[in-house]
Parts: sequence; structure tokens; C-alpha cells
Amino acid sequence: MTIPLPSWRDAPTKQAIFDFVAAVTDESSPKYVPLAERVAVFDNDGTLWCEKPAYIQLFFAIARLKQMVEADATLLDKPAFKAAATDDMGYFAALYPDNMPALMQVVFDSHAGMPQPEFEQMAYEYLSHSLHPRFGVPYKQCVYQPMVELLDYLRNQGFKVFITSAGGMSFVRTVAEEIYRIPRENVIGSNVTFEVGWQGERLVLLRKPGLVDPPDDGPGKPVNIELHIGRRPIFAAGNANGDIPMLQYTDTNPQPSLCVLISHDDATREFDYTAGAEDALKMAQDRGWLVVSLKKDWRNVFAVQAR
Amino acid sequence: MTIPLPSWRDAPTKQAIFDFVAAVTDESSPKYVPLAERVAVFDNDGTLWCEKPAYIQLFFAIARLKQMVEADATLLDKPAFKAAATDDMGYFAALYPDNMPALMQVVFDSHAGMPQPEFEQMAYEYLSHSLHPRFGVPYKQCVYQPMVELLDYLRNQGFKVFITSAGGMSFVRTVAEEIYRIPRENVIGSNVTFEVGWQGERLVLLRKPGLVDPPDDGPGKPVNIELHIGRRPIFAAGNANGDIPMLQYTDTNPQPSLCVLISHDDATREFDYTAGAEDALKMAQDRGWLVVSLKKDWRNVFAVQAR
Repeated sequence: MTIPLPSWRDAPTKQAIFDFVAAVTDESSPKYVPLAERVAVFDNDGTLWCEKPAYIQLFFAIARLKQMVEADATLLDKPAFKAAATDDMGYFAALYPDNMPALMQVVFDSHAGMPQPEFEQMAYEYLSHSLHPRFGVPYKQCVYQPMVELLDYLRNQGFKVFITSAGGMSFVRTVAEEIYRIPRENVIGSNVTFEVGWQGERLVLLRKPGLVDPPDDGPGKPVNIELHIGRRPIFAAGNANGDIPMLQYTDTNPQPSLCVLISHDDATREFDYTAGAEDALKMAQDRGWLVVSLKKDWRNVFAVQAR
Repeated sequence: MTIPLPSWRDAPTKQAIFDFVAAVTDESSPKYVPLAERVAVFDNDGTLWCEKPAYIQLFFAIARLKQMVEADATLLDKPAFKAAATDDMGYFAALYPDNMPALMQVVFDSHAGMPQPEFEQMAYEYLSHSLHPRFGVPYKQCVYQPMVELLDYLRNQGFKVFITSAGGMSFVRTVAEEIYRIPRENVIGSNVTFEVGWQGERLVLLRKPGLVDPPDDGPGKPVNIELHIGRRPIFAAGNANGDIPMLQYTDTNPQPSLCVLISHDDATREFDYTAGAEDALKMAQDRGWLVVSLKKDWRNVFAVQAR
């Protein structure tokens, strides 16, 4: 038998996860939760994969904007295209965290009109072959090994495991089965909607501009959990202020629940940042959520470093 | 070993289902489809449960409108409330099929502002205790026994089975596990969206007026299949014109696929109607979709009649 969570240090954090799972899966425990109600939700950017120096999907969108400028130079009149063409990351950085909708629009509209299978192919290729600027490995390898082990562990204990990403649902789905063993239908996120069209004799879905309402961030996370799952989670993990409503929704479940907040405090092995997580960290303290320190709690950060 | 589909007559229709499933699940077959891609989608009203003399959810909404009129008689000034209070089914019947959005608005807005758990409790009670006007059994028993067997059969063959209802996702979810063995997260449908609120110390979701775009009917079905599942189905069953785009999306899957259309032609045991299904029946003929005749193909219609 494999011991679960090998990449987690033997620390109170790991023990707290074991204790919670033991209690809710033990039929004789007062905290027992039936199988169907064992829903676990995970934010993606900064919780399952690396989100620095910028969201992976932003790099992907910038690559697309560059490609569009190459085909049509008049697009340089638009600020987002200009910034992409000149690698002006400051332009995009200035849009978040305070102007997430504008950033999302840039990211999501960059593939408007494209048939969905073509978008998926581009996304999959990008995640598989473009390299992280610091770690030098394909983006799809920039996943946190301890979290992948946590997904496996919960699934083995009968949990239904979902991703609830502020980033693109379609984007993450292209690799979710491969890197997280999470099937596509269990990935929730922000997304464009589609219109029905025909390619020859085949009905295809074409990506529309604009986002499905609500985007899957902040209060949109519990709403989309209800729309896509229909159950209040008993386990939630996040790392940013945008995860607070999802964590609160889980925290105030009448059933026993566990809320986990990932704290990025390890500049050596990953990044050290709390920008955009100040409120979440404070609330974690007030509410007794489990704060996971990259530095103290994880033996390895990425699978590639573990070799 | 139980022989599958016992409520289906030994007819070419049943054999065609067996043949399709055998081909896509046999690894040595050229039509083999890997597990992850075996997605099956089922319309609900008229495909899994009875939709006559009117949609079950319309009866539910009318009951709610009556309840609201009892609390506030001034609501009688509004036509939908007046019609509900006076059992004027003609008013509602006149809204469909041509004015589905108006009908949907009446149905969905009738619980606006309500916390979702309260709505679910009401829906579950209604489906469990209100009786079908003709069959005299609770609505949740008005499910087609042959179709329940088909859901089980496909699931046993490794299919992921989803409901894609034009009716309310939340409404159907309250009983889906009990009557169809379909977990809540596998029920897709039209639905209101929510806003986050607090009841004391508990975060709750409150039902908002207005529908999530697109409603899950017509071209909205493939769009919501993509948003909720992320895979093109290889099996689809429907019974009405509103199911055509979903059936076409399945029919034009590059993988082998089977499209099934339920034909209500049995006035003795259920209802005899083709209103709202004319185009679908014609298309089924043109495209070679499998048309299921209640009269010829089903030994039993409802489980209760089988006793």
C-alpha cells in the first residue's frame, strides 16, 4: 500500500488533512459524510499550477495576439495587440487584480469565432510545448506535485474532485485528464459561450466573444458550483482573495468541511507573494482554515524537481 | 446475469441499441470508442418522464403561483397569476411551443429570491407527493421504465450518462439520483442563476429572476453540453424539435454515434402526440436515427404498470 501525500512533510498540516478525511469517511464517526456528498473543489491558478510571473493563459493569449498582428498589422492600433507585439507585460500586469474583467476580455476574446476543436488543439499544443520562463519546462509540467497527490488521495477516499478555475474552463480541460486525472466534465471555470455553426456536414461550436455570466471568480465560484455540481462542497482549496466566497460556501456547509489556503512563501523553489491574497490569509486565521506553506509543508513543489 | 432492457420488446429497435453498444465497447471493433469519450445525453420531458397533459414543472409553477396569490391577492392583476388561480391551463398552453421563453419566464421566476435549499425542498416534496392528473401516481413515478433500464445499461457499459433538459436543472436534480441513478452533477438543464447572500452565519445562494443564457433547448443544448461536459456525445436521445441540434451534434460526431427519437404513439398506455416533433421525426427518417415507438417497442411504459 502506498502512503498518501509523499511530497508533504510530516507536519500538522498533513495530519489535519488525514484527520478530516478519516472522520468524514468513517461510517461510525459523527462526522461521517455519505459518498454522494463528498464534493471537493480546487482553484487552479496558484493552487494546482503555477501562476507566476503571470497567468499561463495570459501568456497563451499574448502568443495568439502576436499571431493575429502578424496576419494583420492594423491591429497594432489596439493597445492590447500593441502590448503583446512589444512584449509589454506591464500593460497586462496593470489590468489585474483591480481590472480582472478587462484582462479576462483580452484573454478570452483572442480566440473569438474559432471552432472549439481548433481552439483546444492550440491550447493543448501551447501547454505541452511552450516553456515556463523561469523553470524551463512546458507549462503543463508546472503543476504542484503535493496537490496532485492530494487530488488522488481524495478521489481514492470517494471524493468527487472538481476544478473551479477563474481561468478558462476549455483551456484547463485540454490537459486536466493528463496532468490531474480530472475528467473534462469536472473542470469548471470562466469561459466564453458558443454559437452553433456548420463546417460542411458537421455541426460545430464556434467561440463567441464575451464571457458566460458569472465569471468563475469571487462570488461567481459558489454560483458556478451550484450550476455545475449542485452540491455544497465539504472540501475547498484556494490561494487568493477570489477564492474567499468558495471557501466561505464550503466553510458554512452544515456538514463537516475543510478549507485549505495555499500560501506562496517560497522564493527559492517557486515564488514568494501574498499580493491578492491578503484578505484570504486574514480570513483563514479568523476562521481556522488550514494554511499550507510551500516552504514548510511541501517536500517537493514540482514533480520535475523531485527526480 | 440480468438480460438488459427487459421492458423492451424483442424488436429491431432493441437490437440496434445492442449492436451499437457492442461495437463501441469492443476493443477489437473498428467502431471502438475509449471509455472517457462514451458520453450519452438524454432529454428529460417526453424522453425520460411524461410531459403530458403539460410539463410537470408547469404544474409545479402553477401551484407556486396559487400559493403566492393566497398570500397577496393583488397579484391577480397579472395574467399568469390569474390563470393559475383559475386553473386556466389554456393560458399556459397558448404560450408553447411558439412562446417558450415567455413560458420559461413564468416557470422560473415563480421562485425568484428563494434560497436554493428551500426551493429544492419544495420541488422534492411536489414531485414526491403531487399526483399526475391521469395516472394518479406521484409525478416522480411517471418515468419511462424502458428508459431507466437504458440508462442503467449504458452506465454498465462504461458510458457517462447525462440529462440535458429544457426544463429546470435544479428541479430535476432533486430526484435524479433517486429515480434515474444519475448524480446531480450529471443533470444539465435550463436554470436561473443565483446571487450570494447570508442567512445568519451561513452563505446561501438565492435564486435570481431570469434564465442562464442559453436556455437548454434547441441550439442551447449543444452549447450547454460543451459548457458542462466538454465532449461531443456518441449517444443522444430526445423526442421533440428542441432536441434536433443535440441530435445533430451527436450524429455528426467523427466517432460512431447513435441518435434515438422517442415517438409518442400510444394513447392507451400514455399519450399519442407528434405536435412539436414533426421536424425531428422527418429528420430521423432522413438521417437514419432510431425511432422508438412506445406502442411497438415497449412492453411496459411505467414501472407501476408493470406490477
